[in-house]
Amino acid sequence: MRNILFLLSILVSISVTAQEDADNIKKIYSTSLTNGKSYEWLDHLSNQIGGRLSGSLNAEKAVEYTKEELEKLGLDKVWLQPVMVPRWVRGAPEFAYIETSPGKTTSVNICALGGSIATPSGGIKANVVEVKSLDELETLGKEKIEGKIVFFNRPMQADLINTFEAYGGCVDQRYAGAREAGKFGAVGVIVRSVNLRLDDYPHTGSMSYGDLPNSQRIPSAAISTNDAELLSNMLGLNKDIKFYFSQHCQQLKDVQSYNVIGEITGSEFPNEYIIVGGHLDSWDLGDGSHDDGAGCVQSMDVLRLLKESGIKPKRSIRVVLFMNEENGLRGGRKYAEVAKAKGEKHVFALESDSGGFTPRGFTFDCSDAVFNKVLGWKELFKPYLIHYFEKGGSGADIGPLKDDNIVLAGLRPDSQRYFDHHHAANDTFEHVNKRELELGAATMTALVYLFDKYGTETITDKTELKD
Amino acid sequence: MRNILFLLSILVSISVTAQEDADNIKKIYSTSLTNGKSYEWLDHLSNQIGGRLSGSLNAEKAVEYTKEELEKLGLDKVWLQPVMVPRWVRGAPEFAYIETSPGKTTSVNICALGGSIATPSGGIKANVVEVKSLDELETLGKEKIEGKIVFFNRPMQADLINTFEAYGGCVDQRYAGAREAGKFGAVGVIVRSVNLRLDDYPHTGSMSYGDLPNSQRIPSAAISTNDAELLSNMLGLNKDIKFYFSQHCQQLKDVQSYNVIGEITGSEFPNEYIIVGGHLDSWDLGDGSHDDGAGCVQSMDVLRLLKESGIKPKRSIRVVLFMNEENGLRGGRKYAEVAKAKGEKHVFALESDSGGFTPRGFTFDCSDAVFNKVLGWKELFKPYLIHYFEKGGSGADIGPLKDDNIVLAGLRPDSQRYFDHHHAANDTFEHVNKRELELGAATMTALVYLFDKYGTETITDKTELKD
Repeated sequence: MRNILFLLSILVSISVTAQEDADNIKKIYSTSLTNGKSYEWLDHLSNQIGGRLSGSLNAEKAVEYTKEELEKLGLDKVWLQPVMVPRWVRGAPEFAYIETSPGKTTSVNICALGGSIATPSGGIKANVVEVKSLDELETLGKEKIEGKIVFFNRPMQADLINTFEAYGGCVDQRYAGAREAGKFGAVGVIVRSVNLRLDDYPHTGSMSYGDLPNSQRIPSAAISTNDAELLSNMLGLNKDIKFYFSQHCQQLKDVQSYNVIGEITGSEFPNEYIIVGGHLDSWDLGDGSHDDGAGCVQSMDVLRLLKESGIKPKRSIRVVLFMNEENGLRGGRKYAEVAKAKGEKHVFALESDSGGFTPRGFTFDCSDAVFNKVLGWKELFKPYLIHYFEKGGSGADIGPLKDDNIVLAGLRPDSQRYFDHHHAANDTFEHVNKRELELGAATMTALVYLFDKYGTETITDKTELKD
Repeated sequence: MRNILFLLSILVSISVTAQEDADNIKKIYSTSLTNGKSYEWLDHLSNQIGGRLSGSLNAEKAVEYTKEELEKLGLDKVWLQPVMVPRWVRGAPEFAYIETSPGKTTSVNICALGGSIATPSGGIKANVVEVKSLDELETLGKEKIEGKIVFFNRPMQADLINTFEAYGGCVDQRYAGAREAGKFGAVGVIVRSVNLRLDDYPHTGSMSYGDLPNSQRIPSAAISTNDAELLSNMLGLNKDIKFYFSQHCQQLKDVQSYNVIGEITGSEFPNEYIIVGGHLDSWDLGDGSHDDGAGCVQSMDVLRLLKESGIKPKRSIRVVLFMNEENGLRGGRKYAEVAKAKGEKHVFALESDSGGFTPRGFTFDCSDAVFNKVLGWKELFKPYLIHYFEKGGSGADIGPLKDDNIVLAGLRPDSQRYFDHHHAANDTFEHVNKRELELGAATMTALVYLFDKYGTETITDKTELKD
């Protein structure tokens, strides 16, 4: 009888706790949808500031603006963490055409890839060799590549449901295409934009020459998917057509910039840190609304939504707006370096860097044991149509924090439209839906609330689990 | 031993069947995403034809076009099912303003509600009484309403996750507002657009006077959410401001129209019917891309995707493009009436009428026993991020088929953006994402494939179930 009473008392306490969690999570969602700030902040970041490439004036303005907004929230601490960042600038607009015979040209849409060198000021004109992969360069060899422009034209795989997987299957062309083609004496590289849709936007993104000597470094640009199709079709008609492009980008000296950090200090375990974040820098073509203005304003609202919902965290909760994810990851590395130097114990980090679309769930980078425990919370998210709890990667900026004691996670929004906008001129505010953005902020807040309340070590004692 | 072997053979056959299902469903999704036709059809329906209000020339064109396209698919039968439909026309554009003092006016965006009468040709100008509900009319009584324009201004509830629920909580104002206000001697009705977002689009939709005598019928229009806020704010400054509106709509005589039907005749049970459908008519302000061009082209592609995937259905599969869902439901009623008269045995009906957004799952209108059986298929949809299997409504057009022997279901796409576009001028093609539309078509096809293969009576014998 005593045992039964004991068991009953445990069951009652479990269900009271579960009800309290359900109520708090409901309050979080409700507050975000009726009184969220994420959309208003994004409006400013996107429409009053705009694209925020590392080292640019806009990036500096974004640092100032978000710091001021965090200060208005009445957090316990707000500060800037200095970090030196690379400064690559696009310069005058790119120009490109296909020349079918001397004087007969068709203009196409290109943009320099981030990190690329410029063409000579008069541009480059050469024959084109179309390939589908880096490996194909080996097969063709120097003889067929030297003096030519290499055109990487492998499209994203349309029948993958997770578009990030399709991105992963293509992005080597963009990142390493110029480095590899340069080794075979190519004079330039044109890469099909990493976009599932056929449209006219060229999509930029980072590329790297690695250790390639300067003499082998060649300019590299992305071409819109429509124009990639056109170029390929024209090459099908005649292999001897020529491609011309000019671009005026350059890598300048590193400049001083900052991660922006705000903190609610924990009431019980102030020396245990939970962080939420996105990256404040963006590419320069659009205004960086989805990538990653959305993740920044959602992360800012996590701290605000906790406060507005009357939740006093036990652990210290930090929002970190990382600088320079796109072309250097210096902000993420600096944050981890400082945290390690100070011996700060980070227990959980959550990044939102997959767009401001309807949230579907999370991926978790953690042990199986912890993951199984986290799965016990899944039911609490069901009313909000959050169903995707999988093991997987988290986010680039929080990656450097990885060690055995931290759980890393990434918010996973619906991915279908992400690459229509990614790194292109149409990554703009009007393509973010207010409710979808707010649902994402609430979903992050709910997870932070649970991690703060239960930690990862003590989960099993305090909540219903499906182990 | 014999028993064990027998059990083993059953287990092996179950897992072979499950693997075959997984393979076929994969083929369906892959075909839709790489070789779907839904987007191309929608492009034509939206951009070459446009808004398709019942009885309009565009509706007639849509009937011809979809019939021709179905004929190209090599189905076993394609035909038109005659149905008389109401014909309401908007006439010259509406016009409205708020008059703060004589001669001082601010224009606002309105549109006549479908089914409304016109204002007198010179329009109506009157004082305004703002209410939040039909019930509030009772409280105010004739004294405070007579001679005035009633302004229904209850907004959609933002913190409901399913926006259709928020729609359900508001739409009585639109549908019955004029009928109820007319009883108290109001001279006109203005209804806040059923839209979660603040913007400048008025959203139309059907209204009804019920049995109200002609003398009490008053014109009724929707106002954009921004202008509803403005009007309410101005009324807060001064209750004596006036509102003017003019509209020129009329209800004409019923005209001949058609449901468009195509059929793959079943190989084993040709007299058992499974139908998939959407409605071909739309409101006139936009081009009806989400409501419900999307559902039509997805339903058409279900039959095509089955064929392209090499699946030969055992039962007869019909696509039905219903006419007149928006303002009469005549097509849905006619189809059910004819089916009943012919004694056709309908076993399953699936409607897509919630927009062409990323599909999340289905609602099922069926017995608990059947629903539990259907849940056994849920795992097959997991790779496609289809997670929402719930009991609930299906679709207006297939509703009249309801009896004890049919399972009704509705496709449930992500609902966050639906009411931004619903019945408004911005329900247009560019707001439909190709992949999201194609995922919906594949999701419907996969469910039809399973229902055809297993029926509802024999499910338990043939597949893995979680009863």
